[in-house]
Amino acid sequence: MKITVINPNTTRTMTEEIHKAARSAAAPGTEITSVTPIIGPESIECYHDHYAANLGVMSEVHKATREGSADGFVVACYGDPGVLACREITDAPVVGIAEASMYMACLVAAKFSIISVLDRENYELERMVHDYGMQRRCASIRATGLTVLETDSDPEKTMRELTRQSELAVLQDGAEALLLGCAGMVTFTRELEEKLGIPVFDGVIAAVKLVESLVFLGKRTSKIRTFSKPEQKTYLGMNAFLPY
Amino acid sequence: MKITVINPNTTRTMTEEIHKAARSAAAPGTEITSVTPIIGPESIECYHDHYAANLGVMSEVHKATREGSADGFVVACYGDPGVLACREITDAPVVGIAEASMYMACLVAAKFSIISVLDRENYELERMVHDYGMQRRCASIRATGLTVLETDSDPEKTMRELTRQSELAVLQDGAEALLLGCAGMVTFTRELEEKLGIPVFDGVIAAVKLVESLVFLGKRTSKIRTFSKPEQKTYLGMNAFLPY
Amino acid sequence: MKITVINPNTTRTMTEEIHKAARSAAAPGTEITSVTPIIGPESIECYHDHYAANLGVMSEVHKATREGSADGFVVACYGDPGVLACREITDAPVVGIAEASMYMACLVAAKFSIISVLDRENYELERMVHDYGMQRRCASIRATGLTVLETDSDPEKTMRELTRQSELAVLQDGAEALLLGCAGMVTFTRELEEKLGIPVFDGVIAAVKLVESLVFLGKRTSKIRTFSKPEQKTYLGMNAFLPY
Amino acid sequence: MKITVINPNTTRTMTEEIHKAARSAAAPGTEITSVTPIIGPESIECYHDHYAANLGVMSEVHKATREGSADGFVVACYGDPGVLACREITDAPVVGIAEASMYMACLVAAKFSIISVLDRENYELERMVHDYGMQRRCASIRATGLTVLETDSDPEKTMRELTRQSELAVLQDGAEALLLGCAGMVTFTRELEEKLGIPVFDGVIAAVKLVESLVFLGKRTSKIRTFSKPEQKTYLGMNAFLPY
Amino acid sequence: MKITVINPNTTRTMTEEIHKAARSAAAPGTEITSVTPIIGPESIECYHDHYAANLGVMSEVHKATREGSADGFVVACYGDPGVLACREITDAPVVGIAEASMYMACLVAAKFSIISVLDRENYELERMVHDYGMQRRCASIRATGLTVLETDSDPEKTMRELTRQSELAVLQDGAEALLLGCAGMVTFTRELEEKLGIPVFDGVIAAVKLVESLVFLGKRTSKIRTFSKPEQKTYLGMNAFLPY
Amino acid sequence: MKITVINPNTTRTMTEEIHKAARSAAAPGTEITSVTPIIGPESIECYHDHYAANLGVMSEVHKATREGSADGFVVACYGDPGVLACREITDAPVVGIAEASMYMACLVAAKFSIISVLDRENYELERMVHDYGMQRRCASIRATGLTVLETDSDPEKTMRELTRQSELAVLQDGAEALLLGCAGMVTFTRELEEKLGIPVFDGVIAAVKLVESLVFLGKRTSKIRTFSKPEQKTYLGMNAFLPY
Repeated sequence: MKITVINPNTTRTMTEEIHKAARSAAAPGTEITSVTPIIGPESIECYHDHYAANLGVMSEVHKATREGSADGFVVACYGDPGVLACREITDAPVVGIAEASMYMACLVAAKFSIISVLDRENYELERMVHDYGMQRRCASIRATGLTVLETDSDPEKTMRELTRQSELAVLQDGAEALLLGCAGMVTFTRELEEKLGIPVFDGVIAAVKLVESLVFLGKRTSKIRTFSKPEQKTYLGMNAFLPY
Repeated sequence: MKITVINPNTTRTMTEEIHKAARSAAAPGTEITSVTPIIGPESIECYHDHYAANLGVMSEVHKATREGSADGFVVACYGDPGVLACREITDAPVVGIAEASMYMACLVAAKFSIISVLDRENYELERMVHDYGMQRRCASIRATGLTVLETDSDPEKTMRELTRQSELAVLQDGAEALLLGCAGMVTFTRELEEKLGIPVFDGVIAAVKLVESLVFLGKRTSKIRTFSKPEQKTYLGMNAFLPY
Repeated sequence: MKITVINPNTTRTMTEEIHKAARSAAAPGTEITSVTPIIGPESIECYHDHYAANLGVMSEVHKATREGSADGFVVACYGDPGVLACREITDAPVVGIAEASMYMACLVAAKFSIISVLDRENYELERMVHDYGMQRRCASIRATGLTVLETDSDPEKTMRELTRQSELAVLQDGAEALLLGCAGMVTFTRELEEKLGIPVFDGVIAAVKLVESLVFLGKRTSKIRTFSKPEQKTYLGMNAFLPY
Repeated sequence: MKITVINPNTTRTMTEEIHKAARSAAAPGTEITSVTPIIGPESIECYHDHYAANLGVMSEVHKATREGSADGFVVACYGDPGVLACREITDAPVVGIAEASMYMACLVAAKFSIISVLDRENYELERMVHDYGMQRRCASIRATGLTVLETDSDPEKTMRELTRQSELAVLQDGAEALLLGCAGMVTFTRELEEKLGIPVFDGVIAAVKLVESLVFLGKRTSKIRTFSKPEQKTYLGMNAFLPY
Repeated sequence: MKITVINPNTTRTMTEEIHKAARSAAAPGTEITSVTPIIGPESIECYHDHYAANLGVMSEVHKATREGSADGFVVACYGDPGVLACREITDAPVVGIAEASMYMACLVAAKFSIISVLDRENYELERMVHDYGMQRRCASIRATGLTVLETDSDPEKTMRELTRQSELAVLQDGAEALLLGCAGMVTFTRELEEKLGIPVFDGVIAAVKLVESLVFLGKRTSKIRTFSKPEQKTYLGMNAFLPY
Repeated sequence: MKITVINPNTTRTMTEEIHKAARSAAAPGTEITSVTPIIGPESIECYHDHYAANLGVMSEVHKATREGSADGFVVACYGDPGVLACREITDAPVVGIAEASMYMACLVAAKFSIISVLDRENYELERMVHDYGMQRRCASIRATGLTVLETDSDPEKTMRELTRQSELAVLQDGAEALLLGCAGMVTFTRELEEKLGIPVFDGVIAAVKLVESLVFLGKRTSKIRTFSKPEQKTYLGMNAFLPY
């Protein structure tokens, strides 16, 4: 089984970390390919970044679909950028790491908190929690206050802030599990889990298992209405990324 | 007061119709500039189109902001593409036609129905209705079954299907006002209103009035958290559209 | 265009302030008439006052409708008293200042807080927020603890308490815009806005712009079902206020 | 124990029927006094009537409170007019027949439907269902199409329409109990119950039992915040009805 | 009228206290029989206890139904265990004390808080609040931190903790009434009510009045669909408790 | 990895079919043990059955936990009986087939419908859909009208009714995937999927993959609050099933 993991931003070091996490979660027979888009922002921290990132994600799914190189896709940014459009492009399962982490957490905990990067994203995280129907399971949304690139480059400070917010989530907000709200936090999962004694979910590993499961079971995206293939039409100035 | 109306798709004839509608709604002192993005899909009928269109909308807001040529923006596609990102780019008010039409309709009717183009979009319209808090005001979402370009090119058939779905909305679903779920339907507003005897809202005119109002009152997008300016960062392959 | 602004309480000094605010928001061609009911409470701070005020508001709409003296109405109390009944009496648009301020705020901010007068009203404000579908946009409801008449007579103290509650709303509750939950607070809008650096909405000016917009666009209240004209019937002891 | 049942409209024949129903539900030691307001509409079928009726209801509660003549109150119109204000006036329990019927029905049925008079009221009934938290228990809201006074004067036709709508509620909407959405339908309860074989609730009898229960248990309306006594203030032109 | 009150746990001293409370609430003509199941946990503090208790509750309803010894049932544990199944077994009304206390509280207060025993139950209480549609009426859920048996055996400590949590509920959370979230707290109702000056509801007395009311009115559980009698079938190893 | 699949009813032929389905979904290294409780109903079609079944499910989890014979559990009835209590008993992941199927379906379809057995269960399915936050993803709940045992014994009739209800779900309700609302329907999955051309989910295979994923990732149920181990206490008359 071949799974393509897409890092929606263009920072290759993050793709590498995501790749390591994805591989660690993959079953023996699963081949993980991790890709960095040829277009997009170096990190995703607001709507502007998010919408800019959609295109690169869509482009990678088009490419892998054309090449027949993937049985399923993981979109590895905690805003699930582009996922709904990708479900139209291909009938191979496409799973975003936010949606994946929430479903997985609900199976082992009554309430979870999300620890994200900047608090300017809290509003979108709250919207996403509602969109996935998780409003009664989400104890709180908290932010470390570090940017994605700081998270990537200063692990010590990140671990300190992650721990602090996580402890507040548990003690004040009633969290019983934690979700790491940035793909760049994947390296802290295990340490944080040991420190806190509760399940900590990195979305990448959750999404890999869910895509693997869907592929194994032969389930493909429903093409009957919402996610049917986009009509063939002209996309001005987008030939480099979209095959229409 | 200068308002820029952005047609998120690249079909210039639609920009012209939208422009006419916008002008008809504008106050005497309001200068309307309508623009067609240099990048994007020729019509917007699914997530794939929607996400591709975001970039062109953002690009136009960047451009007008750089040039200081707009006091406010209307995004003239009934999926409100790019709006949240545009609220980050500028502090001039940015209003999408879906959000505008729903608020306006609620002031003159207990329940509204949305008549859209293809039923594959119903799911996204339903999500939008929930996102704007309008689930108890929305009687139903219906589709004519005609594409955006058919809507644009075959007015007779469009009027027939619009009428049919509108009558069902009123009689079966309890609608007391109608929202036209596609910027390309703007030319049918008046005729449909007369036929049905209830308010029919085209989002373009609703959005023009709301932006005008916000500009008149000196209200600008809050920059304190969610919509603060995007961080300066590298956007790979997007120099042509985004100024970062 | 003639707009009648109704102050639902019987305190004429408040009518005058509301009138000034309404005029400041009106377009050049708009004629604002502000009226004080001949029946009702001197201020509105609880359900008892609210229900007593309904009658005066309805009476003024009847009167203006009979005289043909209004193209639209603003109801200038932050509980929107009588609005739904007035939408039955006339097909001219009737807009309450609470509903108006919430819609306007949502166009320029992710989250708003309402600063009201007494905390005994919080429950009704919360109900209203839900009724208008704004529960996910409302960061908090706070009260200055001053009565309507104190708000009117002691501007210094009012400004101090408004500022204090507003700062808490921004820092603790995540507000990105503020709504002034009493028509008598209209004079503090600009000062508070400058102090806090975020949009502050007085409902009166928001409602004036929305009514103007609806009248300009020729939209009238839907008479097809919910807001159709009340049946002709006997209203015992109400001849002085209601024309039936 | 003395319970005052207020018919919010001014039609005395309806007060009499309501009185009979209330008495039939009262415990041996309960003294029922049924009153008709000295001000208000002859029937309640829209917001205009509802708001006009509030005053009469409040007036009766003031009067009975002043005279110390009631241990509890029933407001006998299926829109619960005035109830929230009356909870401020007195600390004796005040129960509306809509709220009462919904709670009671939920104890013996998974889903209920409301059969009301005119479909223009459906929107308000839907709002009330949401306000009382009953949206998942309410299978549907249906209307007979007869006015309140027709309901009162043509029992045969009313029974026929009630039966027809009730059968549709059970067969099509999944209702397992029925609520009669007008105090004037109280005389049909038993016959309809026998015909349909499911519980049918008239709100009057439900409310009498709930007020009796609260009085028996010594529970009084909480005066700590929302329902504390209204401030003493001037009510212009309302001396005849309100004691302030 | 004969009402059977079922203590879902097997601690007889608690049955006795519940019985006293039930008797104090019963009307003169009501005969209260309180029973302790022959199977089940000694106290109910988690899902494990709750599910184990269901069986005993069902068994008692079967028994009383077979013997014709009850016109209605109260299930006296604040998780309403077994109630939905019991509504299938018999058509006599079955009322749980949590549901009863919430409905009653809503008739005399805008917002209530629940004070329960251990905070591990908060999640289930929150689910229950949502299931009964009371999410907007519930100000908070708090726990004393004492087990059910400690609550039963150390009244002084219990009163101290109940008071402390109740005061926080009123001052910080906005509660205007309190619900005692454990049948074993029934003895503290009156004292707490006097201390706090707001209504305090023990569910046992609330449920007794509601069952009495339903029986008096001749209302029986709807047997048309959800609560129709269970099909006759084999229950392996359960002959001692269930009559199938 | 060892997974125990519990058939909550006592019909061994159903355990065998469930076992086959579970095995077909299991990864090569996964050892599936399927068990039938020693206590409980022969089929589960109402609350009475459901609550009776809880005990057997809990008993099996206790047993496997004591024996150390399971790394994770699947509860194979579409009401997820006992699941929340089992999450207290063990820290090995416990997954119910309803929750599993809904999460999986949401990854490949915008909307799903559930096809269940008897319509008396619709209310509980609706409650479950809300409890799992899936109300906006659930297009409808439909029933074949056949009992669990008929479903098991008459495959031809079952297939016919399943097909009929599924087609209505797709055409009338807007379903884009189907969930089989009874573990006994597992054998029809593939055929139905081919017939309809949309994803059809049997909960058993969905749950097996989710438990496998959680075990593989080393995620265990959070023991910090809600699902901490039940207190040691006396369970009267339950020694045979519960180890306390």
